[in-house]
Amino acid sequence: MLYAALLAIGSEIIDGRIMDTNSNYLCKELGLLGIPVRQILTCDDNIDDITAALAYISAKSEIILISGGLGPTTDDLTREAVARYYQCKLVLKEEALRDIKSMYERRGRKYDNSNDVQAYLPENSEIIKNPVGSAPGFYVGEKGAFLASLPGVPSELKAMFKETVAPLLKKSFPHAKGASIKGFKCFGLPEATIGSRIKALNFPDEISVSYRAAFPEVHVALKSFSAELPKFFEEAKRAVGEDFIFTEDLNETFEERLHKLLLEKNVTVAAAESCTAGILSGLLTNTPGSSRYFKGGVVSYANEAKRSLLDVPAATLESFGAVSRETAEAMAQAARVKFNADLGISITGIAGPGGGSEKRPVGLFYIGISSTSAVSAVRGFNPLDRKRIRAFAAHTALDSLRRHLTNLAPLPDARLPNQVEDIR
Amino acid sequence: MLYAALLAIGSEIIDGRIMDTNSNYLCKELGLLGIPVRQILTCDDNIDDITAALAYISAKSEIILISGGLGPTTDDLTREAVARYYQCKLVLKEEALRDIKSMYERRGRKYDNSNDVQAYLPENSEIIKNPVGSAPGFYVGEKGAFLASLPGVPSELKAMFKETVAPLLKKSFPHAKGASIKGFKCFGLPEATIGSRIKALNFPDEISVSYRAAFPEVHVALKSFSAELPKFFEEAKRAVGEDFIFTEDLNETFEERLHKLLLEKNVTVAAAESCTAGILSGLLTNTPGSSRYFKGGVVSYANEAKRSLLDVPAATLESFGAVSRETAEAMAQAARVKFNADLGISITGIAGPGGGSEKRPVGLFYIGISSTSAVSAVRGFNPLDRKRIRAFAAHTALDSLRRHLTNLAPLPDARLPNQVEDIR
Repeated sequence: MLYAALLAIGSEIIDGRIMDTNSNYLCKELGLLGIPVRQILTCDDNIDDITAALAYISAKSEIILISGGLGPTTDDLTREAVARYYQCKLVLKEEALRDIKSMYERRGRKYDNSNDVQAYLPENSEIIKNPVGSAPGFYVGEKGAFLASLPGVPSELKAMFKETVAPLLKKSFPHAKGASIKGFKCFGLPEATIGSRIKALNFPDEISVSYRAAFPEVHVALKSFSAELPKFFEEAKRAVGEDFIFTEDLNETFEERLHKLLLEKNVTVAAAESCTAGILSGLLTNTPGSSRYFKGGVVSYANEAKRSLLDVPAATLESFGAVSRETAEAMAQAARVKFNADLGISITGIAGPGGGSEKRPVGLFYIGISSTSAVSAVRGFNPLDRKRIRAFAAHTALDSLRRHLTNLAPLPDARLPNQVEDIR
Repeated sequence: MLYAALLAIGSEIIDGRIMDTNSNYLCKELGLLGIPVRQILTCDDNIDDITAALAYISAKSEIILISGGLGPTTDDLTREAVARYYQCKLVLKEEALRDIKSMYERRGRKYDNSNDVQAYLPENSEIIKNPVGSAPGFYVGEKGAFLASLPGVPSELKAMFKETVAPLLKKSFPHAKGASIKGFKCFGLPEATIGSRIKALNFPDEISVSYRAAFPEVHVALKSFSAELPKFFEEAKRAVGEDFIFTEDLNETFEERLHKLLLEKNVTVAAAESCTAGILSGLLTNTPGSSRYFKGGVVSYANEAKRSLLDVPAATLESFGAVSRETAEAMAQAARVKFNADLGISITGIAGPGGGSEKRPVGLFYIGISSTSAVSAVRGFNPLDRKRIRAFAAHTALDSLRRHLTNLAPLPDARLPNQVEDIR
């Protein structure tokens, strides 16, 4: 049986400063390729420990993926350790050096030789290009074994795994067979509810279901070697409730989904935000090309700004309060009109930790949505910490837009408090 | 030197279904006790792998902490593997069984013997009580070595570590003394430059320096048992350049630092954003209490909005363009005036991937800053992907505020292209 082992290198992991998220990513990706991980070893930037670790894990695994220790500083020792493991020399790989220099050039930076060391790689290795950063990776494939060394920066590791390592593994180990995966992403239901709805379907053992809480979303993946996977996938979707599912593409973000919807429907948007203070506008512009539908936004953090920039009547603020359905509606209307957009979307709420009251507790928010023909607002409540309250409110606004554009009913007020429990 | 090793057991980790957060927790806690972690090993519920792992990690570490594999099902093999490692038997620990039964009773559940297996522990071990769940842990302390086995459920592991394991370690290893760590966080210099400036100081071996690229920041930590650490720390700061260092507290974020500065100086702020579309306002309000200084912001994504909401003169937009020093200055002025704030801060730029030209390439941006007495703008350039261009521009704006509030010179235009590279 073919196995992979992971070696994560870095004092910042071992002293607890950062969480090793790379290994989790690689375990998942290797699983998709049909290559189970046998062991994960994490050690410090210590050349003896790295070399010993390589000897230990290679006894049981043909494939070794190393992350970390490829930077330009003195604590980056992976290159040297791997050379020692193979009993070969480090040699200057001209192509790697050219890549580093051209990366500098593209970024308009002067190259000063302090990155030269990154181009000295084990003599028996081939370069893995880094499309994102300066550290080149490398791999050695010989005698049915495979070793790749990637930078520890997650965005670089992921890009290099996808573009180079995964294709190499598929080519080198053609008999590995990954299970098929079908999945979807939900918003508006807690993980436990989704889990029990799917559990009630009593799927056979050959269908493995996994859940991932990616706050505030929940991602569900069905994995199987069975040809009947699509049938079970449809059952799972119906059981969960299709209106809570915003995409069936596990690689698509909520913003990307909404981006496509807005372009399809040819609708422009403007935003008015209070407690989220720009997070919604930031999300709405994450995707390239968003200027085709996003006109702009106002962050009316102080009440004063709600009056002066958004013309929310003082009477509305006084009678109903800044955190109210009425203020949310007035903000949405104003955003639409001010920016001359088709839709106005607004958020007003209490992100805390201070500022709550019995009547208007921390975690309460209203989302307003205004079109040329109607204005409405929904209430949300999710009493978490400040960061997650803000993320949740902004996501609820994205979901309100999605539901509006696809003619789904809004998430009803009353259901929100129960729905949203979970956080994990 | 005293070391600890961690062994995390569980197929759900190794197949990527969950992230091993326990090890990160234990690394931090052990660090505080003065016990550095030497290695972390993760493996499947496989008795041969677990036994081999114990032999491997115990060669270099006196202290071993195991997580996972203590449940009642057939794939829970940690008890047996540890007994095999010590070449002793599993015996029924009456006290553990009583604890399990009384946990069932407290929860009003009927006990049916399927948990009996959890009370069979290595003969040479002592029980670690589980105040949260049903799985008892255990430890073995002999001949200057210590091994503890805890459940994998994070809430149980944490409670048992705090209540039992940490006090036992303090008692068993009274001489453990944490190395001191002093560090700082920088913005505006690439990691390689920081690394070579510190490397040139030729610190003695007893001072270990580690770097972490937390885009767009670089974090530097000096670790040592030497009483002279503070002296080397000062040298490192001077070598890097103190104006690039925004905090000497590795737990403080840029937003928190700025939060304190704004409160100290009693200054209010408003923002006008183009390409970052709310990200800066979002950052400025991350910290509770930000309503004391943040008045609001305008996201003038469309040019139309720059004219209508920010009164940027059409002539300025026409003569200099939307991405120009002049427009940035006009936006900053307008934000300050509209929101009646002490300072206005603005960002206009090209986040790409489209919309660039030779004269105004993707990655170019201007940060404007306006006070009642002056207005100015700096230019930044960092041609990365859209997401990082936006994050970098927003961070440069935070840094412009920091520099303004602490009377430091702004990051000079000309230096930015070289400085800002890097990403790692």
